Amino acid sequence: MMQIVVSPLSEELKAALQDKIDQKTKPPGSLGRLEQLALQAGLIQNSLTPELRHPHLIVFAGDHGIAAEGLVNPFPQAVTAQMVYNFLQGGAAINVFCRQHQLQLTVVDAGVNHEFPAHPLLHDRKIACGTQNYLHGPAMSPDQCRLAMAAGAEEVKLAHDAGCNIIGFGEMGIGNTSSAALLMSHFTGISIADCVGTGTGSNAQQLTQKKAVLQQVLAHHLKPPTPELALATYGGFEIAMITGAIIQAAALKMMVVIDGFIVSSALLAAVAMQPAVKDYCVFAHCSEEKGHKAMLQFLGVKPLLELDMRLGEGTGAAMAIPVIQSAVLFLREMASFNSAQVSNRTI
Amino acid sequence: MMQIVVSPLSEELKAALQDKIDQKTKPPGSLGRLEQLALQAGLIQNSLTPELRHPHLIVFAGDHGIAAEGLVNPFPQAVTAQMVYNFLQGGAAINVFCRQHQLQLTVVDAGVNHEFPAHPLLHDRKIACGTQNYLHGPAMSPDQCRLAMAAGAEEVKLAHDAGCNIIGFGEMGIGNTSSAALLMSHFTGISIADCVGTGTGSNAQQLTQKKAVLQQVLAHHLKPPTPELALATYGGFEIAMITGAIIQAAALKMMVVIDGFIVSSALLAAVAMQPAVKDYCVFAHCSEEKGHKAMLQFLGVKPLLELDMRLGEGTGAAMAIPVIQSAVLFLREMASFNSAQVSNRTI
Repeated sequence: MMQIVVSPLSEELKAALQDKIDQKTKPPGSLGRLEQLALQAGLIQNSLTPELRHPHLIVFAGDHGIAAEGLVNPFPQAVTAQMVYNFLQGGAAINVFCRQHQLQLTVVDAGVNHEFPAHPLLHDRKIACGTQNYLHGPAMSPDQCRLAMAAGAEEVKLAHDAGCNIIGFGEMGIGNTSSAALLMSHFTGISIADCVGTGTGSNAQQLTQKKAVLQQVLAHHLKPPTPELALATYGGFEIAMITGAIIQAAALKMMVVIDGFIVSSALLAAVAMQPAVKDYCVFAHCSEEKGHKAMLQFLGVKPLLELDMRLGEGTGAAMAIPVIQSAVLFLREMASFNSAQVSNRTI
Repeated sequence: MMQIVVSPLSEELKAALQDKIDQKTKPPGSLGRLEQLALQAGLIQNSLTPELRHPHLIVFAGDHGIAAEGLVNPFPQAVTAQMVYNFLQGGAAINVFCRQHQLQLTVVDAGVNHEFPAHPLLHDRKIACGTQNYLHGPAMSPDQCRLAMAAGAEEVKLAHDAGCNIIGFGEMGIGNTSSAALLMSHFTGISIADCVGTGTGSNAQQLTQKKAVLQQVLAHHLKPPTPELALATYGGFEIAMITGAIIQAAALKMMVVIDGFIVSSALLAAVAMQPAVKDYCVFAHCSEEKGHKAMLQFLGVKPLLELDMRLGEGTGAAMAIPVIQSAVLFLREMASFNSAQVSNRTI
C-alpha cells in the first residue's frame, strides 16, 4: 500500500551507549526505565548524544457510521465536532498538557461529520463526513483507506520538515473504541468480548449491546485477508491516518509516542504492515480502557505510565514526553564518575 | 519534640471540587489519578483553583557511622561528599531533572564527614561529621535528633518564605538504606530481612552480611519507646532532617512530594509523630529498592510512577512534580461542558 520501508534499528552504537549510561554518577541501572529510553533514543538517532527536537502532537478526528445510530456510544456523535472546536479554542485536556510541556499541537479533520471554518490549528484532510456503518459493509473503501494513510504520512512529513524528531498522536471520534476493539480482535485473535470496554462510559446494558453489535460485525465480514483491508473494514479515518502517520514517522527515524487504546489499535495495523515500526515506539501509558493491557501484552511491551487515564486525545502521550525528555537529558548532561571525580563501587 | 501541629485536611470544598472536576470536557473519571491529585491539591490549598508555586527540592546529605566500616555498602563513604560536590557542580541526576522542570534545588549538609567550602547552593546544617555506628549505641543523641528535625523545618520555612507551596525532598548518604530498613522494620513490624534490599548495588554475599548486621543492630537496641528515640537510634542526620521538614511542610499546608525508600522511612517517623501529615503527601514513585513497595502498602498509598528507579537524591519526586502540575492545570484551565458547549452524555 504505502511505498515506505521502515528499517530495524541499527545496533552499531549499542555497546557505546550502554557504557556511557553506566559511567554516569549513579549506581548502575538505578535510573530504571529511563536508561532503556536513553538507549532507545540513542539507537533511533544513531547518536551518543540524542536530542528531542520540536515535539509535536497531532490529534486526528473522525466520525463513525456505527455511532450515528447510537448503538455503541453514550455520548452523541455531535460531540466529535464539538470537541474539535474545544481543541481549537484551547479548552480540552490535550491543550492543557501541550501548553504545559510546549508540544506543538495540530488538529486534523480526518473525517468529521461537520464542516469547519478555516482555523490555523486545523488541517483539513477530510476523507468523508464519517465512515460507513460496518454492520452493513466496510467502514471505508480501500481507496479511502489509502488516502487516509497517505494523509497521516503527509502530516508527519510537515512536522518533520519543521524540525520535529519526536511525535505523539491522539484521536477524537465518538464510537472509535468500537473500531479499536474490532481491529484488536482481528490482529491479536483475542475474542471480541475481551477487547470491548466501556469507552467513554457505557453502563452494563450498553456494554452488553456493544459486545453483541461488534460480534455481529465480525461475523458479517469474516476475516479480511490483508492488514490494509482489515483497517478499511473496521477502522475509522482517524485510525487509518494514525497508522499511516506511525509508519511514516518510523521511516523518518522519529521517536513515536504511542498513546492509549485507539492509537495502539492503529499501531497493530502498522506493525502488521511493517514490523520494524515497533523499534521506534515508546508506549506512553496503560489506559484504563479494558482491552489496552492485553494489547500491550500482545505487542510484548511495557507502558511507561499507569495513571488510570482513559481520555484519549493523545493525553497519555503528552504526559509521557517529559519522561522521555528526562532520559535523553540525563544521557546528555549528567557527569561521569571520571569527570566528576566520584569513586565507583569498591567491589 | 517539635512544637508543630499538623491539622487534617478540611473537607469543606470536597463536593464543589468534585463537581468542578466532573464538569470538565471529558468522560467522568477519565483523567484517573490526575483527578485525585486535583482534588487533593484543592483540599490542601482550600481552593477551587489551586496553584503550584515555586516548587522546591531539598537534598539532605549525611554520613553514617555504620558505613565507615564498609559493612553495608559497596561504595566507599567518601562518595557522600563527592556526590555533594557533584550536586553543586550540576552534574548529578537530580540537577538534570530540576533544571528540566525548573525546580529550585538546595543541598543541605546535614552531617557529611567532610568540610565543604561555602557555596550558594549549599546550606550548612551539619550536626556532626556523620552519625555514630548503631551497632554499638544510638546513631545520634536525642538532642542531635531534635536539632536535625528543627534544621529540616527551618529549611522548609525558608522555601515557604520564598513563595513555595510544593516541596520534595531527596537524600544522599552512603549507608542510608540500612537506616531506612531499620526504621521501616521498627515502624511497620515487618522483619528486617524483608526490609533490606541491595541499596546502591550489594551483591548476594554483601546482602547476606547487611541483613546479619542489621539484625544485630535491632537486637542490640530492643525497641526504642518513642518515634523520636527510634529516629535517633536508627536514623541518619539527613533522615531526621527530612522527618522535621515533612512535618513543617504539612503544618504550612504545602504539598509534600515523597520520594523513594529513604524519604519514605523519614515519613514513617513523621506519621508516627503526626498522623495527619499523610494528607499532604503525594507518593511520587515506587522505588526498585526492595522494601519500598511494602512500605507504601503499610501506609495504604499508591505511588504515581513506577519507572524502576532506585537512585535517591529526590529524583523520583522531581519526576512526579510535572504530573502533579498536570492535575492542577487541568482543574484550572480545562473548559467545562457548559463553557465549551459540548454535549454531556445522553444517558
